Amino acid sequence: MLIVMRKDATDEQIGAVIEKIRELGFKPHAIPGQQRTAIGITGNPGPVPPEHFELLPGVAQAIPVSQPFKLVSAEIKPERTIVNVGGATIGGESLAVMAGPCSVESEAQILACARAARASGAKFLRGGAFKPRTSPYDFQGLKEEGLKLLALARQETGLKVVTEVMSPNSVDMVARYADMLQVGARNMQNFSLLEAIGEAKRPVLLKRGMSATIKEFLMAAEYIASRGNYDIVLCERGIRTFETMTRNTLDLGAVIMLKQLSHLPVIVDPSHGFGLRFGVIPLARAGVAVGADGLIVEIHPEPEHALSDGPQSLTLPMFQEMMQEIRRVATSVGRRM
Amino acid sequence: MLIVMRKDATDEQIGAVIEKIRELGFKPHAIPGQQRTAIGITGNPGPVPPEHFELLPGVAQAIPVSQPFKLVSAEIKPERTIVNVGGATIGGESLAVMAGPCSVESEAQILACARAARASGAKFLRGGAFKPRTSPYDFQGLKEEGLKLLALARQETGLKVVTEVMSPNSVDMVARYADMLQVGARNMQNFSLLEAIGEAKRPVLLKRGMSATIKEFLMAAEYIASRGNYDIVLCERGIRTFETMTRNTLDLGAVIMLKQLSHLPVIVDPSHGFGLRFGVIPLARAGVAVGADGLIVEIHPEPEHALSDGPQSLTLPMFQEMMQEIRRVATSVGRRM
Amino acid sequence: MLIVMRKDATDEQIGAVIEKIRELGFKPHAIPGQQRTAIGITGNPGPVPPEHFELLPGVAQAIPVSQPFKLVSAEIKPERTIVNVGGATIGGESLAVMAGPCSVESEAQILACARAARASGAKFLRGGAFKPRTSPYDFQGLKEEGLKLLALARQETGLKVVTEVMSPNSVDMVARYADMLQVGARNMQNFSLLEAIGEAKRPVLLKRGMSATIKEFLMAAEYIASRGNYDIVLCERGIRTFETMTRNTLDLGAVIMLKQLSHLPVIVDPSHGFGLRFGVIPLARAGVAVGADGLIVEIHPEPEHALSDGPQSLTLPMFQEMMQEIRRVATSVGRRM
Amino acid sequence: MLIVMRKDATDEQIGAVIEKIRELGFKPHAIPGQQRTAIGITGNPGPVPPEHFELLPGVAQAIPVSQPFKLVSAEIKPERTIVNVGGATIGGESLAVMAGPCSVESEAQILACARAARASGAKFLRGGAFKPRTSPYDFQGLKEEGLKLLALARQETGLKVVTEVMSPNSVDMVARYADMLQVGARNMQNFSLLEAIGEAKRPVLLKRGMSATIKEFLMAAEYIASRGNYDIVLCERGIRTFETMTRNTLDLGAVIMLKQLSHLPVIVDPSHGFGLRFGVIPLARAGVAVGADGLIVEIHPEPEHALSDGPQSLTLPMFQEMMQEIRRVATSVGRRM
Repeated sequence: MLIVMRKDATDEQIGAVIEKIRELGFKPHAIPGQQRTAIGITGNPGPVPPEHFELLPGVAQAIPVSQPFKLVSAEIKPERTIVNVGGATIGGESLAVMAGPCSVESEAQILACARAARASGAKFLRGGAFKPRTSPYDFQGLKEEGLKLLALARQETGLKVVTEVMSPNSVDMVARYADMLQVGARNMQNFSLLEAIGEAKRPVLLKRGMSATIKEFLMAAEYIASRGNYDIVLCERGIRTFETMTRNTLDLGAVIMLKQLSHLPVIVDPSHGFGLRFGVIPLARAGVAVGADGLIVEIHPEPEHALSDGPQSLTLPMFQEMMQEIRRVATSVGRRM
Repeated sequence: MLIVMRKDATDEQIGAVIEKIRELGFKPHAIPGQQRTAIGITGNPGPVPPEHFELLPGVAQAIPVSQPFKLVSAEIKPERTIVNVGGATIGGESLAVMAGPCSVESEAQILACARAARASGAKFLRGGAFKPRTSPYDFQGLKEEGLKLLALARQETGLKVVTEVMSPNSVDMVARYADMLQVGARNMQNFSLLEAIGEAKRPVLLKRGMSATIKEFLMAAEYIASRGNYDIVLCERGIRTFETMTRNTLDLGAVIMLKQLSHLPVIVDPSHGFGLRFGVIPLARAGVAVGADGLIVEIHPEPEHALSDGPQSLTLPMFQEMMQEIRRVATSVGRRM
Repeated sequence: MLIVMRKDATDEQIGAVIEKIRELGFKPHAIPGQQRTAIGITGNPGPVPPEHFELLPGVAQAIPVSQPFKLVSAEIKPERTIVNVGGATIGGESLAVMAGPCSVESEAQILACARAARASGAKFLRGGAFKPRTSPYDFQGLKEEGLKLLALARQETGLKVVTEVMSPNSVDMVARYADMLQVGARNMQNFSLLEAIGEAKRPVLLKRGMSATIKEFLMAAEYIASRGNYDIVLCERGIRTFETMTRNTLDLGAVIMLKQLSHLPVIVDPSHGFGLRFGVIPLARAGVAVGADGLIVEIHPEPEHALSDGPQSLTLPMFQEMMQEIRRVATSVGRRM
Repeated sequence: MLIVMRKDATDEQIGAVIEKIRELGFKPHAIPGQQRTAIGITGNPGPVPPEHFELLPGVAQAIPVSQPFKLVSAEIKPERTIVNVGGATIGGESLAVMAGPCSVESEAQILACARAARASGAKFLRGGAFKPRTSPYDFQGLKEEGLKLLALARQETGLKVVTEVMSPNSVDMVARYADMLQVGARNMQNFSLLEAIGEAKRPVLLKRGMSATIKEFLMAAEYIASRGNYDIVLCERGIRTFETMTRNTLDLGAVIMLKQLSHLPVIVDPSHGFGLRFGVIPLARAGVAVGADGLIVEIHPEPEHALSDGPQSLTLPMFQEMMQEIRRVATSVGRRM
């Protein structure tokens, strides 16, 4: 159920609706828009009768929401969301680019990446301090030490730091260092983690699970939103199919569908979407052309010595080349960097 | 690397090998067998030279292990593992049957299920107290209250309790009530959870992820084993494919492959593997015929009123029928109940 | 639309209904049952008004069919079909076993297979004379020479011959030698071939396409039936999924669903369903346990020298072992060989 | 094996090499390049010793080919192929656009499409006269009548006609009317058809099978090439995955990989790749941005009345809009229309 307030509704009227929702035992989510405020209702076990609200002062409409996702649905908020990460935005006309190594390995490595990223126009630095690895015997990340190096790189370059959180217990620690919390593909349905992140005061980058449907992906975002954190960016990073020549199958159709169904920004990860360096730039161009709001890309000063994901990491000169190419494509589709 | 000790190796000789492994900075895992002890080595970044060990007293052989999974590999331990859950076993000649509702809903419901399970010969009671649900607005389980009801049902029936843990934080609480900890399909690569469970002192039921390869499944088991918990049972519960008429595609070929590659017991979940009641009994028969070590099945006194998974839950009389049918199939393949 | 005749309907009344259907420009399919005759209508662009038929003498009911498949639907014919191939049957209480090499290679080879098949109780000899191969440079089969060898083997052993047809042009030639025409997985939606086979006077073995849904599979059978050939046996042979350790993923849930939706017999191919010899016998047992009406299995006197599919072919002694094992499982589920 | 001739090799020397290949019982395929001629060898059961050729006059190199596809491999011919269809080209700098209805329905419909296609700059008219349909009861196309209407539209507009052939028997008939023969996704491994098309004197548009790997796709092209028809254009049209919200999952990574592995042109079908009108233009932009050599798009004057594929057909004004958009993207990636 979505309560749409009249344009001239007063704060008191909005407050009264919120109060009414609480009285009924449900949870109100005020969603201020440019023209008017809407109030989403969650926590209701079944449909809520519109009559409860339609006659309250200031209410324009009470709309039942047909999709199982509500707070993230385009039905509930037709204007597109722009997520603001300490001044750098995702969504809107300009493209957001996040670049950095798969894993933070050393001060020299992360600073080299950060400088190259900033030089080419990226606003965000990615880098894993906690790494989910298929094998327990593989490099698991530098952990808190890695977070400190990311913070150091931010201090020098002004880039916003995006990094993965792997467990509810470490949300607080990661949030101390990072500007944006990443939920990895393997954890997209780790509901305990989603809930903890929903209560954190940090924007979230939510990656699509390897075999998550578009609906499940939006429901995972809904978990986060239902706890009160609405600053969510979705990331298409390739799905698992029968094809094995590429690491994953990048599903750019999903980007279109996600933007149709939801107001959240959507970015694309061409590095995991292909898995080999030579495919990253073409897929980055395609991601921009299809209408994504940004890109997240793995780069490394020496990919051949990377502790993880070397084969898919761009060299720093290749990243510079990528930025030039996507700048041209962005212009051709009415976006800018 | 696997160090196989001679049959007549003394405890001191075994201890000396373990000491040597620690000195080199690696982690020893002693695996006592019926005839001899083997010692797995993990934590080595690359191959370990066999010379380090071959000349030590009591060592029969030092074998490099070619699969990325080591502790769970059939190469390292050719004898099949039998997991003992408080006296009830999984693996070995007799089939283990776990039955119960998807979610624990009430004392009456869980007791009805437990009595029916025991009456038909099941040894384990399943039931979710913490439920991973696609939607944040769906029933999430009774939580600790549900665990208490499971413990109550155990007290009355003597069945062993198997229930899901969803986050590292709740491992201790669940372990206080349950005999066996379940890792759900969505958490198969929740590595923080796997590590916490690896340190728990409870046998584990590890379900295959929806799109996990057989190798990734075994690597998830390896995570648990690498922390010192070797009492792991694998569960094939259907994978996600293009077919949508059935909820999942039960992959019985995987059961064969898992038993070829690993010494761990493997059971089958025909309820999630089909998703509709009428397919559960035939798939249960097939699971037994293919060589699985047991079954986990959803049952409910009134499936039409279940809070979750109603369509795939067997009624209590159907469960009784199932037990009779699989008893006959078990005999035909040289197993017993 | 299905016209169900009364039990006491006369041949003239049946004839009149058929005449009426033709007059309307549609195609009648008389389907005699044990108790009464039903007449399916196809060729109608949309729903046919029941009034056209309900008042004709001898008509009991005019039933709209809700599934897109009609002639093969269990709605239209609740009794299960038994396909008779020159006296050997598929469907019904006894299991049909088809065995033979992937490709016919020589007289010695096919005779060795045929003798071993018969000795263990198989009633059908499979063997490819026209082979669909991924590479144009691989062995493509002995063609007509292979058909002659199959006929020779039939003469000696009395086994019924099942072999693949790859193009509409060769249907007549293959039908001259074979007792049953096989449509391979890659040709399941080769509609020109399905139509030609629908007009042939030979029972058909239709294999499920690698990525065909259950509905598409039944629609392919419907193509054949709509041309007047109702003697169709469906074969589940594994689908393509993300898992690559097994050649395909055998979908035994599909067997259950096919038997629910259709009256046609369903058999299972454990050889292609696993792709490696050691998995064939366990999957054969599972296929019988799940309720399949038979099995088709690749065997070879010397699999290590086979021109195709060697790794998944059973040796002749293994086939004998398989037959003993499935005999026991068959008994346990109320079937016989 | 690939024999690369010296730049200054004479026709006689080339002839001698070809003769030598025939003598050995293999099949030569002369592939003239801009700078030099290469000669592929097929039909060899195993590796051919390079010594047979290296010492012949005019031979520069004898290279063993490691991929199972040979004639279509980029190893054998590093220069990209440009397919010439009666003066209109596919491959090279300029993008090829093919537009038209799913099925040819009437003279008015096909002419409206053809005029709109030409007006916006397309060079090819697509349209199905023989339609592969999942149901035997659906519209199967106008057959030869449809071919005549396509020829009529060509006469008026000068567009080149691309249309599907469904069986070896109809290759000759379709080739009489069409400029380019299409092999549909369902027939990608209909090897009898591929062979017949390999012998036709018409360029071919080969669509990727719904669950065909990139390697299988190239092997299907190899079938055609191995019969002497080298004018092949590959078409990525979406693969079947677990996602059902879009009709297929367009695999733009495959476009990159195909162009890496093969010298053949590759185009993209955004209509089947998404299945709903609103996703076609964005995916068309993405296809151009990723580096495809062209697009094939379904258009219809009145999609709501289309006999097939209405939901994914662009209206004529939308097609005009698409052409304007992709023109801009093409420029941004160094291509032109």
